[in-house]
Amino acid sequence: MDLQTKLRKAVRDINDFPVKGIIFRDITPVLQDISLVNEIIECFAQRAEEEKIDKIVGIEARGFLIGVPLAIKLNIPFAPIRKKGKLPSKKVEAAYNLEYGSAIVEIHEDAIKKGERILIIDDLLATGGTVNAANELIGKLEGVAVGAFFLIELEGMHGRDSIKNKDLDVFSIIKY
Amino acid sequence: MDLQTKLRKAVRDINDFPVKGIIFRDITPVLQDISLVNEIIECFAQRAEEEKIDKIVGIEARGFLIGVPLAIKLNIPFAPIRKKGKLPSKKVEAAYNLEYGSAIVEIHEDAIKKGERILIIDDLLATGGTVNAANELIGKLEGVAVGAFFLIELEGMHGRDSIKNKDLDVFSIIKY
Repeated sequence: MDLQTKLRKAVRDINDFPVKGIIFRDITPVLQDISLVNEIIECFAQRAEEEKIDKIVGIEARGFLIGVPLAIKLNIPFAPIRKKGKLPSKKVEAAYNLEYGSAIVEIHEDAIKKGERILIIDDLLATGGTVNAANELIGKLEGVAVGAFFLIELEGMHGRDSIKNKDLDVFSIIKY
Repeated sequence: MDLQTKLRKAVRDINDFPVKGIIFRDITPVLQDISLVNEIIECFAQRAEEEKIDKIVGIEARGFLIGVPLAIKLNIPFAPIRKKGKLPSKKVEAAYNLEYGSAIVEIHEDAIKKGERILIIDDLLATGGTVNAANELIGKLEGVAVGAFFLIELEGMHGRDSIKNKDLDVFSIIKY
């Protein structure tokens, strides 16, 4: 079975979560199959190698689950992007709209150095709001955002089209 | 330099975060040194092998950062414990007091099978409230909590003494 098929079988659909009318794509069953996690990391690592990445940023909280293992695989550092108020040191922030609601994300000022080539990792691409916010944070620290990788892309939300940085390598393993 | 010394140098102290009088131990600089992350995983893996672990649970959000890489290293599944309202499927919950404030954590009902030997991973042991909540969740699902590993232990908070499950292998790499 190929990776796409395995991942599609592992993802669990939850109707009306977190609000009525939303089908939530639950990736927690994926983590119960560690060989599948390894295949995902391998897939991302191969794609990342084409992009000569210096650092991974993972978006809280599900972006942490895959982001750190990928950083280990690529032998490069990892920096977290977190919701407002969670990071303790000097930081920059960016606001964005979610699929449902809105939020502010932050990154430590010293998390990225000028010119570093950065790969953004999250579990799911929906509206693209989080990616644009992550891209803005990377830009504020003079890093170069080169890619954004996801397990899942919700094509109906047109997130790919709404990503402002057209140089980003936007990659997802499966699409709904 | 040994792991303890490296980790102690990497952890950043932030005064008065999140509230006045607290010294916050910031582990984000640790993630900037991926060889240090690998050493931490190796240290935990060696300790875990004595305990014959079936599954890792990581506590949101910083427990995800180390928990999934450790699960990959040990070739066993990972399950997240999350703050109330984040997990979408059927779940059980436990309340606990924090170093500052209180909260409820949840785990999916199907995250743990009866009799599975579970290792709890988080970044920091403070009062032990989160560990007791995690232990309660594991018990509700008839798993066997066998250990709780941390990067950092705040000895002045006496968390180790307040952990109710005296069979837990409580392990931390550095202490303050």
